[in-house]
Amino acid sequence: MKNWEKNIRKVVPYTPGEQPKKSQIIKLNTNENPYPPAPGVKEALAHFHTDDLRLYPDPVVTDLVDGIAQFYQVDPSQVFVGVGSDDVLAMLFMTFFNSKKPILFPDITYSFYDVWAEMLRIPYTQIPLDDAFRLNPSDYKCENGGIVFPNPNAPTGELLPVSAIEEIVQANPDVIVIVDEAYIDFGGESALPLIDKYDNVIVVQTFSKSRSLAGSRIGFAISNPTLIKYLNDVKYSFNSYTMDRITIALGTASIRDRAYFEQTTEKIIKTREWTKEQLRALGFVFGDSKSNFIFAMHPDVSGVELFEALKKNDIYVRHFGKPARINEYLRITIGTDEQMHKLIDFLKKYLNK
Amino acid sequence: MKNWEKNIRKVVPYTPGEQPKKSQIIKLNTNENPYPPAPGVKEALAHFHTDDLRLYPDPVVTDLVDGIAQFYQVDPSQVFVGVGSDDVLAMLFMTFFNSKKPILFPDITYSFYDVWAEMLRIPYTQIPLDDAFRLNPSDYKCENGGIVFPNPNAPTGELLPVSAIEEIVQANPDVIVIVDEAYIDFGGESALPLIDKYDNVIVVQTFSKSRSLAGSRIGFAISNPTLIKYLNDVKYSFNSYTMDRITIALGTASIRDRAYFEQTTEKIIKTREWTKEQLRALGFVFGDSKSNFIFAMHPDVSGVELFEALKKNDIYVRHFGKPARINEYLRITIGTDEQMHKLIDFLKKYLNK
Repeated sequence: MKNWEKNIRKVVPYTPGEQPKKSQIIKLNTNENPYPPAPGVKEALAHFHTDDLRLYPDPVVTDLVDGIAQFYQVDPSQVFVGVGSDDVLAMLFMTFFNSKKPILFPDITYSFYDVWAEMLRIPYTQIPLDDAFRLNPSDYKCENGGIVFPNPNAPTGELLPVSAIEEIVQANPDVIVIVDEAYIDFGGESALPLIDKYDNVIVVQTFSKSRSLAGSRIGFAISNPTLIKYLNDVKYSFNSYTMDRITIALGTASIRDRAYFEQTTEKIIKTREWTKEQLRALGFVFGDSKSNFIFAMHPDVSGVELFEALKKNDIYVRHFGKPARINEYLRITIGTDEQMHKLIDFLKKYLNK
Repeated sequence: MKNWEKNIRKVVPYTPGEQPKKSQIIKLNTNENPYPPAPGVKEALAHFHTDDLRLYPDPVVTDLVDGIAQFYQVDPSQVFVGVGSDDVLAMLFMTFFNSKKPILFPDITYSFYDVWAEMLRIPYTQIPLDDAFRLNPSDYKCENGGIVFPNPNAPTGELLPVSAIEEIVQANPDVIVIVDEAYIDFGGESALPLIDKYDNVIVVQTFSKSRSLAGSRIGFAISNPTLIKYLNDVKYSFNSYTMDRITIALGTASIRDRAYFEQTTEKIIKTREWTKEQLRALGFVFGDSKSNFIFAMHPDVSGVELFEALKKNDIYVRHFGKPARINEYLRITIGTDEQMHKLIDFLKKYLNK
């Protein structure tokens, strides 16, 4: 071994869902939105002056921060933006999770949390969900160095009511509680009102799912100005200009179109509820997802088998190898009605129903 | 003080150069390129399908990595890309600077190095440049946990010959040596050949300066596949999808146009040499910059006074408050011939020459 190897931070990275290069597939594996971004995004791109790219972007991302602040009726000093919500969450972990006590998150949850904790040498404890994959607020009342969970949870889709989140926050006044709302816009109730009542709550959201901009990389956090200031200090100590000029322009156009956002999320909710009925009729088992995916298993067919059979037929869903108790489950993103019909038709045939 | 405050990472962030919103200024303060990006960039933007933004980008950024590999005649496994070279450098610090021994960098250098070290709790020693702001390789032969320096150096513009860099690398086989070549394309000789001879050298470059894409955020590192693999593991533990779809498309178009790149960098070199003559005639003192800026002082006028006088006349240059021995200097970016004529005309008047 070389001497320099001793000083290398060696980690096992997060594995994102496949991004197959084939274009004729039904892609239900990475929770993307089946509808295009708001019409204003196309317009903003058409009007963008390429020559301006020679200049650095606005480091404080004024236009986009203002747009988000306006949409959520908060002050711009309460908004932090990053390159996707992964960037936002990584910065949050760095800024706020520096205790020697373990941070807490569910055992079945966004699989990046333990990766960040490992990489940043943050001690952590994974709290088991109950048998129905539900998070019990009472489990979050032990001593800890911080708390993070998605709501709705990923990959289960289970929604926690704001009252349950408030119970967790109330029990933990000495640490920062991060509510990761990547999927909140598909029928969930946001914990945003809690930021006015408590000084230790941070809500994270993203443009990747409900705003159809996964390809642009925009995430944001909303909290009180004090926490956002600490977060920005760390961010500006890492990289001053993370958000490029085009992304700022497109994100700003996107957040301005509330009607389109409401219309497309409504459509996805409708398709999800239809898909639930169909899956139920086929014998699938799943919780009451309030996200843009359904986490389901079939009592008669193994998760791996179904995953492979679907993939062979150009239908991509997500299968997680760990932890063991979700091995039989598939996470199926809600696509268009047409895509979901094709999925259901295939499953009917495959299961001989 | 709130209890949660104890666990916050408190830092003093890097201060980037001003990005004034006025458009009629002569902006020579952040080392941007005065020429637009390559014509292919405009074309790539015009042909981009906005609807594709609903999908995540390629996490391994194949097209851009391949384009960079082809340009520099290395294997794609030797290329790492990030959101600007700041992102690349932050990831490098995290991945490779984990020794308890201090890392080394010059006292007068890119002012982000100490910010990263502070934020990541990396011990560091700043090695003084000599009186002519030159880096002496012999100073880098003490025990250390890693070495990083820009070449040409910032904000001085001084170029170190590759033989001097090789002397540093040879003396430090046990640590990683990072050569930050943000400004190498303006007449410097790259240290890239050293990556074939030594297993501990990493070269960092950027599209922000010589490729006129500061607004797009693209930086990259080239080294051997082993170090690039470690770097990618940390990057994928931080954020899987950092580079957005449009940036990948534009960056790929940019790197393909070698002729335009050579033509614009040549123009900037020519303008720089003309500016040097003019400044010298006005009594300014400066080293032999091989970058797209000149770091100069005037024996008769203080740095702050000149900075303010220029700003008042809508000419923005950069003044650094620290360390004290560069307080009289201004860093002047090379703009177009027309912009530099205006600068020189103003200085002639102001200095009564």
